[in-house]
Amino acid sequence: MEKVNKEYLARLRKAMKEHGIDAVVISGTDPHQSELPPMHWRGREWLTGFASENGTNGTAVVTDKDALVWTDSRYFIQAQQQLAGTGFSMMKEDGPDATDLIDWLVEHIDAGKTVGIDGMTFSVSYAQRIEQECNDNGIKFNSDFPQFDYIYPERPGRPLNPLFVHDEKIVGQDVDSKMGDLMTEVKAELANSVLISSLDDIAWATNVRATNDILYSPIFVSYLYVDDSRRILFVDVEKVTEEVKKHLDKYHIEVKPYDSVLEFVSTLPKVNRLLLDPAKTARGVYDKVGCTTVFGGAGVARLKSIKNSTMLQNIDIAMEKDGVALVKFFKYVEEKAPSGKLTEVGLGKILRDLRLADPSCVDESFHPIIGWNAHGAIVHYEATAETDFTIEGDGLLLVDSGGQYTFGTTDITRTVAIGNPTDEMKHDFTIVLKGHIALACAKFPEGTRGAQLDVLARQFIWADGKAYYHGTGHGVGFFINCHEGPQNIRLNENPARLEPGMVTSDEPGLYIEDKYGIRTENLIAVEKWKTTDFGEFFRFKTLTLFPYDKTLIETSILSQQEVDWINDYHRKVYARLAPLLNEEEKTWLAQKTSPISSPNC
Amino acid sequence: MEKVNKEYLARLRKAMKEHGIDAVVISGTDPHQSELPPMHWRGREWLTGFASENGTNGTAVVTDKDALVWTDSRYFIQAQQQLAGTGFSMMKEDGPDATDLIDWLVEHIDAGKTVGIDGMTFSVSYAQRIEQECNDNGIKFNSDFPQFDYIYPERPGRPLNPLFVHDEKIVGQDVDSKMGDLMTEVKAELANSVLISSLDDIAWATNVRATNDILYSPIFVSYLYVDDSRRILFVDVEKVTEEVKKHLDKYHIEVKPYDSVLEFVSTLPKVNRLLLDPAKTARGVYDKVGCTTVFGGAGVARLKSIKNSTMLQNIDIAMEKDGVALVKFFKYVEEKAPSGKLTEVGLGKILRDLRLADPSCVDESFHPIIGWNAHGAIVHYEATAETDFTIEGDGLLLVDSGGQYTFGTTDITRTVAIGNPTDEMKHDFTIVLKGHIALACAKFPEGTRGAQLDVLARQFIWADGKAYYHGTGHGVGFFINCHEGPQNIRLNENPARLEPGMVTSDEPGLYIEDKYGIRTENLIAVEKWKTTDFGEFFRFKTLTLFPYDKTLIETSILSQQEVDWINDYHRKVYARLAPLLNEEEKTWLAQKTSPISSPNC
Repeated sequence: MEKVNKEYLARLRKAMKEHGIDAVVISGTDPHQSELPPMHWRGREWLTGFASENGTNGTAVVTDKDALVWTDSRYFIQAQQQLAGTGFSMMKEDGPDATDLIDWLVEHIDAGKTVGIDGMTFSVSYAQRIEQECNDNGIKFNSDFPQFDYIYPERPGRPLNPLFVHDEKIVGQDVDSKMGDLMTEVKAELANSVLISSLDDIAWATNVRATNDILYSPIFVSYLYVDDSRRILFVDVEKVTEEVKKHLDKYHIEVKPYDSVLEFVSTLPKVNRLLLDPAKTARGVYDKVGCTTVFGGAGVARLKSIKNSTMLQNIDIAMEKDGVALVKFFKYVEEKAPSGKLTEVGLGKILRDLRLADPSCVDESFHPIIGWNAHGAIVHYEATAETDFTIEGDGLLLVDSGGQYTFGTTDITRTVAIGNPTDEMKHDFTIVLKGHIALACAKFPEGTRGAQLDVLARQFIWADGKAYYHGTGHGVGFFINCHEGPQNIRLNENPARLEPGMVTSDEPGLYIEDKYGIRTENLIAVEKWKTTDFGEFFRFKTLTLFPYDKTLIETSILSQQEVDWINDYHRKVYARLAPLLNEEEKTWLAQKTSPISSPNC
Repeated sequence: MEKVNKEYLARLRKAMKEHGIDAVVISGTDPHQSELPPMHWRGREWLTGFASENGTNGTAVVTDKDALVWTDSRYFIQAQQQLAGTGFSMMKEDGPDATDLIDWLVEHIDAGKTVGIDGMTFSVSYAQRIEQECNDNGIKFNSDFPQFDYIYPERPGRPLNPLFVHDEKIVGQDVDSKMGDLMTEVKAELANSVLISSLDDIAWATNVRATNDILYSPIFVSYLYVDDSRRILFVDVEKVTEEVKKHLDKYHIEVKPYDSVLEFVSTLPKVNRLLLDPAKTARGVYDKVGCTTVFGGAGVARLKSIKNSTMLQNIDIAMEKDGVALVKFFKYVEEKAPSGKLTEVGLGKILRDLRLADPSCVDESFHPIIGWNAHGAIVHYEATAETDFTIEGDGLLLVDSGGQYTFGTTDITRTVAIGNPTDEMKHDFTIVLKGHIALACAKFPEGTRGAQLDVLARQFIWADGKAYYHGTGHGVGFFINCHEGPQNIRLNENPARLEPGMVTSDEPGLYIEDKYGIRTENLIAVEKWKTTDFGEFFRFKTLTLFPYDKTLIETSILSQQEVDWINDYHRKVYARLAPLLNEEEKTWLAQKTSPISSPNC
């Protein structure tokens, strides 16, 4: 690795000199602000050597003297290891020793010098912040320095996976209807046209999907332009299958080559009022726009977040399929664990195969987190050949995983005991479960935000002097990104209101460093409850179908309502999954879902 | 009233003509942004006739054609009644038919015309918003039109109540120490001096008080200037008693005439960096400032909100004194109610007298809300001779009241049954009580905001399809304003974190229109709980001492923990108050605080 990175760095510095760039900022994303960009745009990773198949978070800065990569605390250890010998040093993006990248820039670059970026890989907002600070400090700014074009001839091409149509019988809303909703939102922003760059929004609007363009998300690299008379999908044309061509034709969506978007926006008539989301649109695209721009969200996130009744019915099917895979998986774990031969990595593969055995499951919805004991306490743990633990002895196994079914996206975490759990484990498991149930049972009036409900899931953990610091719930897409906005349920304020049809996770946890991690996660959907003299009230419907490990439940600290809730849930899980299981599995599940009773009273 | 208001209006229009003002905006506040300004600044009230001793919220606009008063939904009925025949019409500030005042202005005033305000009665922020919109629409803006100087010769003078020192043995922090904390905050804002206009902040910083300058708050009309070498109190000098003069001298606080503040700020050296809070400083003051200004909060609100241990000990004394007054009051109510002769207004007077019987109680802390049955459902109900209900038959009596003791400010609400309460009343009382207890019992990590905990108080009410829409908790001052920031506990986000020493109310409620209102309110203080591997944790200490009406508690829906909490609280109330009561009162309180038991188990 050493030589390669140093060679790249030398080439980059040569190109900088030739183009009059004194400092370059290199993003870790693509023209669509993807979290897990395709390899084509992983330039920051191969340049610095700080890389992982499942993506890393980092931004590099190179000057004639310095070569630095900023990353966050999740990656401090990995980055320092991978950067050794590459010529790059790590900088901290968060934590007590954090340095702000832009502050560093303006302190280390003299007035009159030039900072360059590849505008195609920076959002309008981020580029604007860099440019503003440069301006304020007399530094020049060049947003058109596509550095990898000059220094990386071996660069992989863009992904060319074939597109397919997401069956509109499953989606329950056709493209004309979605485009109508979209244009209503666009006009509410006082614009008359929109260019969408975010890939999940495009997949939602077109009912088209692809696999493998973006890891774990069935979305595809493209731009979408819409106004009252034209709909244009900019995509590598070789990806457009016959089926998809027919689908796009039906909805009057023209196909144009991916790269032609730049020329297209440059030739839009001056009177056009083009809506662009500054957080999602590349500065390089914005630089080309020839018409009036309106900055704003197109409201697509909210439209996308509200699942219609067809989708919700299909999510139920996805949950049944997922539940069946999980029954097979956890039954296997229970039976094989005593052998002392199971490993975290091995289990990940088995779980993947069990999910993908269903033809409607096209992929996992994220890289599974399978953590045994101390590994369970690492919130974003990713088992690798180097870290892999063998499951042996007593303890807790945390499994956070999900599938991309054409019927819906799943995401579930269960923590199960292997051998004999300690009283401490049972106690901690139960206070997490109590919070998980309290959130699932919440009733709330229209207008309530996720941050208001978050404490329901944390209250019992806090009352024990313990805490977890991740969010309690993230929005979940429908056969699309597993994480989506605008709503969430977390400590931080978020103005998005919870609306019927929104799906979020309910996943409190507790992490005892070097010992074990506990997380219990279901997906829940907001639904209408009732209208009273006091207004409209909502509640959650639990979607996920898989039992909690009863051997970890300390019933003495449960209320009768909590006991009843668990028994009701387990009854539902059995009723829904049993018809899809063989006799042996049914027996196993019957035992896992048999009623618990409260020792109180 | 009619003639008087029309005459004022005619005089105002004449003055406008003479001064070239086409539209005037008239605020309802004073140079200190007081909620309940002294009569001297109640110009909007006497001009329009929309007035009340306890203050009204409204902003007037007068042009040659229109005369309008904007107010909020609490006052719609009262304002419409009082404005009849005055020449003024009401405009709605909130609700579905709301009109934004500034929007109205720029739509109704032609470009080239002039909008005028009395800059002394508008904050910098609000004046800035009006000016900006005027500028954007080609309208001229004049912030120096002190309209009441021209048209109101009978205007009352400024209040001239004698100042007194708030005993520093009670306060637990002397003025030097407070000034030190203040200057630390000022320098953190990169300023080197500060002019404070908000009266509660000045009272806090100087340990000086007065009664009757501002209704219900022992604060006084003044400005305070502080830098590293000078401390100047601008106040009507006749208010400065010998005792106060000595106190101010001790802390090197110069006294200058109230009005001289304007000249003073105009002569500050250019290099001064004067911190001003744009939400609390009058535009008229800002217009005179001759040096550099820094806009920001001086952090006084936060300093003031954190009560030290001496204050907290003294609040306990205030609570005992308040509890004694309440025992006498509610015992009286219970005994006399069957006579059918008690009235809301009469009870208010009796309660006031009982509190003021203690020499340390200088005033009530707000106008008491005493609502019988349907009146209890009006959240901001104020009993008057016209509305007064006689307490007769069965029902609920809501009493929200408080005292300004030199040992601390109190604020308590109890709802009690008279005669036989219905099952519905008992049920509603109990779900409110459950929320009140849940909030009081909360444990939470450092960094938690009030909005995160708010749902704890609402959860049981929401689970019943019911709701209240006021805040659950407001900050409470220490022998100062009964409502203070920065913290609160409410539906809306507020970035202020809860810190040890902050006092807030805990007052969920439920209001059944035309039937009854329920509110249960204690004051609670944030205190350190413990430090664990997960960080620093806080909890609340309940400060208020008075029992809940046991006859309204539906024990079947209480958990054993809730029953235990109520019994513990009642035990504490009895132990603390009994030594201060006569035998008859003791017997009464013993019965009111005897244990309840749970019918479950």
